[in-house]
Amino acid sequence: MTAGVPENGFDLRRFLLSGNGWPYLLVPFIPIAVVLELAHASATIIFITSALGVIPTAALMGRATEELAARSGPGIGGFLNVTFGNAPELIIAFFALNEGLQEVVKASLIGSILGNILLVMGAAMFIGGRKRERQKFDRTAANVTALMLFLAVVAMIAPAIFELVQGTGLPRPDAKAVDYDADVEKLSVGVAIILLITYVAGLVFSLRTHKDLFNPAHGPEDHLAEPWSVRKSVIMLAIAGVAVGVMSEILVGSITEASESIGLSPFFVGVIVVAIVGNAAEHWVAIYFAVRDKMDLSVNIAIGSAAQIALFAAPVLVLVSLFVGDFPMALVFNGFELGAVVLAVLIAQQVVAEGESTWFEGLQLLAVYAVLGLTFYFV
Amino acid sequence: MTAGVPENGFDLRRFLLSGNGWPYLLVPFIPIAVVLELAHASATIIFITSALGVIPTAALMGRATEELAARSGPGIGGFLNVTFGNAPELIIAFFALNEGLQEVVKASLIGSILGNILLVMGAAMFIGGRKRERQKFDRTAANVTALMLFLAVVAMIAPAIFELVQGTGLPRPDAKAVDYDADVEKLSVGVAIILLITYVAGLVFSLRTHKDLFNPAHGPEDHLAEPWSVRKSVIMLAIAGVAVGVMSEILVGSITEASESIGLSPFFVGVIVVAIVGNAAEHWVAIYFAVRDKMDLSVNIAIGSAAQIALFAAPVLVLVSLFVGDFPMALVFNGFELGAVVLAVLIAQQVVAEGESTWFEGLQLLAVYAVLGLTFYFV
Amino acid sequence: MTAGVPENGFDLRRFLLSGNGWPYLLVPFIPIAVVLELAHASATIIFITSALGVIPTAALMGRATEELAARSGPGIGGFLNVTFGNAPELIIAFFALNEGLQEVVKASLIGSILGNILLVMGAAMFIGGRKRERQKFDRTAANVTALMLFLAVVAMIAPAIFELVQGTGLPRPDAKAVDYDADVEKLSVGVAIILLITYVAGLVFSLRTHKDLFNPAHGPEDHLAEPWSVRKSVIMLAIAGVAVGVMSEILVGSITEASESIGLSPFFVGVIVVAIVGNAAEHWVAIYFAVRDKMDLSVNIAIGSAAQIALFAAPVLVLVSLFVGDFPMALVFNGFELGAVVLAVLIAQQVVAEGESTWFEGLQLLAVYAVLGLTFYFV
Repeated sequence: MTAGVPENGFDLRRFLLSGNGWPYLLVPFIPIAVVLELAHASATIIFITSALGVIPTAALMGRATEELAARSGPGIGGFLNVTFGNAPELIIAFFALNEGLQEVVKASLIGSILGNILLVMGAAMFIGGRKRERQKFDRTAANVTALMLFLAVVAMIAPAIFELVQGTGLPRPDAKAVDYDADVEKLSVGVAIILLITYVAGLVFSLRTHKDLFNPAHGPEDHLAEPWSVRKSVIMLAIAGVAVGVMSEILVGSITEASESIGLSPFFVGVIVVAIVGNAAEHWVAIYFAVRDKMDLSVNIAIGSAAQIALFAAPVLVLVSLFVGDFPMALVFNGFELGAVVLAVLIAQQVVAEGESTWFEGLQLLAVYAVLGLTFYFV
Repeated sequence: MTAGVPENGFDLRRFLLSGNGWPYLLVPFIPIAVVLELAHASATIIFITSALGVIPTAALMGRATEELAARSGPGIGGFLNVTFGNAPELIIAFFALNEGLQEVVKASLIGSILGNILLVMGAAMFIGGRKRERQKFDRTAANVTALMLFLAVVAMIAPAIFELVQGTGLPRPDAKAVDYDADVEKLSVGVAIILLITYVAGLVFSLRTHKDLFNPAHGPEDHLAEPWSVRKSVIMLAIAGVAVGVMSEILVGSITEASESIGLSPFFVGVIVVAIVGNAAEHWVAIYFAVRDKMDLSVNIAIGSAAQIALFAAPVLVLVSLFVGDFPMALVFNGFELGAVVLAVLIAQQVVAEGESTWFEGLQLLAVYAVLGLTFYFV
Repeated sequence: MTAGVPENGFDLRRFLLSGNGWPYLLVPFIPIAVVLELAHASATIIFITSALGVIPTAALMGRATEELAARSGPGIGGFLNVTFGNAPELIIAFFALNEGLQEVVKASLIGSILGNILLVMGAAMFIGGRKRERQKFDRTAANVTALMLFLAVVAMIAPAIFELVQGTGLPRPDAKAVDYDADVEKLSVGVAIILLITYVAGLVFSLRTHKDLFNPAHGPEDHLAEPWSVRKSVIMLAIAGVAVGVMSEILVGSITEASESIGLSPFFVGVIVVAIVGNAAEHWVAIYFAVRDKMDLSVNIAIGSAAQIALFAAPVLVLVSLFVGDFPMALVFNGFELGAVVLAVLIAQQVVAEGESTWFEGLQLLAVYAVLGLTFYFV
């Protein structure tokens, strides 16, 4: 009798403060953002509240996807998990494409890759490694993913080389969108299709022919909470989808005006702020596992998410841009994005090659993120 | 009695369809190309037939070199094998230099490196790994070769950095030949000499001081057919040399006109088509060994050939260009070539570092080749 | 009686010709340089004598620091050793900043990194590996340092990317100093502070939390000579400091005129000559240990010095330049410096990844140094 109420109360509190539950503390920002948008409040305050409001909706979406995946058996489940893992970023990017903010979309793609490799993996290794000599993880799986990431980045660079040598040059970081010539648009579509084929092959590899490599046996402690039913999962996924969509539209609608009045470039907002917001939930989970010395999961979340952005989200958005917005989005990144992503991917390879990490490696990754963030600030 | 004829007939058929023999199916294209050339047929048809005709002559040359090497003892034999291994590419390039097609020569050098790393190694790992969990190879030897390749590429980049910072910039991909200033020509010759010294040191290393590393004991099954006598080998080498020369001259003479009427740039023809034709025989052998799970040989053929192009063929052609053609060929590559070769070499290092491969790694290499090919197509 | 004098005489001779003592053979050049400077002799002869005079003063400084460190216990001692290790380079650079030779300062920073990675490590591996199958070293420590170096280089590139995309471009190699805009100066200071924080964290890592990794137990044979008292060490350090300062001022004062009359660019003098002179003592020690098959120490001296230049000397000089010279030194390197340092660091990673070396690896590093030196010669 008395046990029920305190236990429930205790549960909620513990859940909210646990690795999985804290984003829900930000739920109040969802209605606040909606009200402020309807009241035509200042763009800055709308931007901040909707950015905070995205975080719990993205967390709910991630959770619902995981639960559905857990109920679907390893094949379909893995597919769901991997493919819907970046749904919030995709939804934000879709609304930005619709607003014509192509350069913000590309900045947020690169920002997600940088954030996952440098900020998430850096924080996980730094915090997880503080009181430990070193932390170990399976280097074979990490190396496969790092290679995937590298190859994807090569593909993402090719159209830029084309424009540098042959065309009109890279986009300026302060551009809103650049209407490139037909050749580089065709090239971008071709590259996108090759990336998606590689992505599907990667799913076959990780979910079918080499699934043992990517799905080590986990103890029950890896499950953060009680499992959900399929019905609950689907309903929650639908709610989360709608909520992410509403928050994203409000967020994207306020970016240009808000960045102006804060004094930051839309490029900085896209590459740092939007990227952090869109990945906030995963960030927390990676650190959560690192503290518990489960670096396999932690590293996999970090570089796995980065690889998904490059191999799935980026090409899907190129194809979507054929139908949404005024003109197709060419996969031509600006100089900052190219420099940063190449260096970050080379670092990722180097860091995961050994299969171990220390707090100092984490700190170095964070230092590189700080250097890049500082550079982007002056753009 | 009856056994003799069928056995001979069977042998020939099996030989033609085996890993070693299939190129000889293309022998009829040799006389066809010669006749068409004499009849002044259209450049496109001459180009296609002579390209197909190069393949069996290159295969014969490779075979004769190997046989001679097998009869010469490990020291001289290894030297013959390694140094004559790229004779067909060198002969094609010689005729192209003579025609003044310096940019086609450079494109085919880069194309050979890309083709060996991405297409040959990719196809070998993909096809060889299809029904296997993973394939292993000796990573020490592979890493030495990958480092050699990387250092060679650094040397090949230095004159380009010089031109970018100090001089007149990189050549346009649609240029036929660029007459660079005296400084960069001297620099090219200096770099070529350093590369050749390193190459000779590499021969001493692999054939003398560390020969165990590069010459693992092979079973008899590695020999594809009956050994030849020295006399037969020398005669065959002479025949092959003449045939390669004739085919190359016809091929090179038709490149400019043929590429125009097919609608491809001479750059694309050089970097993709000529490179594939010149290496076709090695390509097949690498796949042949991969399917038989002899990845040591397969990887060594792929990255070893790439290293030889960079350390031997490229510098020899720079020195030859001092005497052949209107003006010396500076070792300055265009933006596509530089970007592609740096990325390919970084990938090669990453792929061989582990000493194992899977079908997915092969597929990723092929995907990068496809992306680069697509990019070059739009040049 | 008779024993005393011969023994002393023998000792001195053996010491002068040993790994540690040979630089003192150059002591006579110190007074010669001073006299020539006072006599206003030709700049070329002043440059050569003061360059030779720097070597023994730098060697004495290194020795005194080591002796003081050995007396101070591992924590403070390691700090002293690591931080004063590059004092001569810093002193030379200070005088060059004071003369307004900012581009020579940056060239000598990059030259030190290149020299340590390619020339020192190359010579050590080549000479040490000549009569050995292979030499082994601890790859974990080497990889940590290589990563540090790579991350530092990323930080050193960021302002250049900023200038390339957003600003006025990279400095010309023949510039004396470039007064950049305020944004990139602020960015340089920010990057410098991040690098110094990382450097301090690296000291904590290598001297406190992970000291076993970097301080393997050494036998007594690693000590080159009898230990000094604290008093002697401090006095020697003071003498060395003054002497390095005097020599550096004379050296720097003659660079511009001397390079003109020798026919070399100040850039070449900074990136090759000054860098070799400033590091001559360490160079010798690294080879000394390599010959004795102590590759751990040898590799650590080479890439550890390079990392210190990047993480400590470069940012300190950026901060010092706020107070010395006409305008602050922006951390923007020219195209040669950027290209060379990125390639050298990628090679360093590759070479140390395996934890073993051969003479051929050493030769390849030397070949790359020769290629870069040749390229710089034509600037």
